[in-house]
Amino acid sequence: MSNIILGNNSVIEALKAGRPINKIIIERNKHNNHLKDIFLLARQQKVTVQEAEGQVLEKIAEGQKHQGVIAYVSPVEYAEVETIIALSKQSARQPLIVVLEEVQDPHNFGAIIRSCEAAGVNGIIIPQRRSCPITEVVSKSSCGAIEHMPIARVGNISQLIKKLKDSGFWIVAADMDGESLWTSKISFDFPVVLVIGGESKGVGRLTKTECDYVVSIPMLGKINSLNASVATALMIFEIVRKRT
Amino acid sequence: MSNIILGNNSVIEALKAGRPINKIIIERNKHNNHLKDIFLLARQQKVTVQEAEGQVLEKIAEGQKHQGVIAYVSPVEYAEVETIIALSKQSARQPLIVVLEEVQDPHNFGAIIRSCEAAGVNGIIIPQRRSCPITEVVSKSSCGAIEHMPIARVGNISQLIKKLKDSGFWIVAADMDGESLWTSKISFDFPVVLVIGGESKGVGRLTKTECDYVVSIPMLGKINSLNASVATALMIFEIVRKRT
Repeated sequence: MSNIILGNNSVIEALKAGRPINKIIIERNKHNNHLKDIFLLARQQKVTVQEAEGQVLEKIAEGQKHQGVIAYVSPVEYAEVETIIALSKQSARQPLIVVLEEVQDPHNFGAIIRSCEAAGVNGIIIPQRRSCPITEVVSKSSCGAIEHMPIARVGNISQLIKKLKDSGFWIVAADMDGESLWTSKISFDFPVVLVIGGESKGVGRLTKTECDYVVSIPMLGKINSLNASVATALMIFEIVRKRT
Repeated sequence: MSNIILGNNSVIEALKAGRPINKIIIERNKHNNHLKDIFLLARQQKVTVQEAEGQVLEKIAEGQKHQGVIAYVSPVEYAEVETIIALSKQSARQPLIVVLEEVQDPHNFGAIIRSCEAAGVNGIIIPQRRSCPITEVVSKSSCGAIEHMPIARVGNISQLIKKLKDSGFWIVAADMDGESLWTSKISFDFPVVLVIGGESKGVGRLTKTECDYVVSIPMLGKINSLNASVATALMIFEIVRKRT
């Protein structure tokens, strides 16, 4: 398997090199200095550490030596926020960046990456916590789009929004209570950051107060809820359409 | 399990009553007059019959008596095409019906039902063959929308399109080669049937020649492909937006 690293030294080196790690699994009731180092490094870098029985690690390792520790690494490298901002300003079209606040389902995340790529979005930014990281499932669900889409991770969404505002972006939150995108007079003919909430709740209350606009897609049925990846695609494509 | 019927008499009665059956499983190497009747009735109604080992039927039956035959029934009743047409004409908005030519993934089908419901579509029509029927997975993926969305099945899409044209509908095919929905001058302010293809290929060549319009959603990325349920949602919502 290409997305796991096994053994003390390999995992320690990956952590020291700052390689993006989704989680680390450590064998239950195993104690040594290497594992202590791994715990400390992982905590510094806010990487989740889980304990599991030895046989679970055996199964994941598929016969390879694991010394009681396995790390799941990201199948692609994360980008820097600054790189995404710079790329967006080099684009022939007005910059468009998507911030996913708390999307947790890897299939939804993958489908959103695919839709963003098809709509010409310049990059996606996700929070380090309470958000699905880039996994193999995300990569597969994106149908190859992930190779063309820079994705950055940040610790704090509030600070991110401030930085994006300072870089000339207008912040647009997608929320059911927002102004209808169909009747809205906003042309979106300026650098836009679209903020999308998670599956279970919309954009956070605090985040919403920091946004310049709150917009919605009109609902005409009885159920009035859409899949997160469908809702995101409708928003992005409507912003791009309004610009053309 | 609520979506299976077990035993000779129950399955025969369900077939005779015309209850919608997704498929019938018969125990391999079992022969009797009941099973012969089931075979004949199933063939008349174009219901798929599969053979399986006795232990497979045991597992599905979960301890209940099955007599070598199990039928999977649809979790909801199918509607008639005529009912959907009549309902669409009673609606306060211009009629909008969606025909799904060969959508095969139950999650996609469920997500499409959900999007159609949210966009106020009057009904969905699918072909009896080469198309995912209504299953438990479809029902769950629709997040309850299936309860509010009439769905009909037809044997022949060509005849269906003729019938819909005769009822005053304009037929619109969604296809990558079509006119861009963004720059199109079509107002869609008339009864519309939107025809969507399957995941692997678009709308069939023959079907396309019978359509009045062929339209597309512009693609601005490198991959230029969207998930079937996302593409369908973008089409439907854009038609509804253009009408308002």
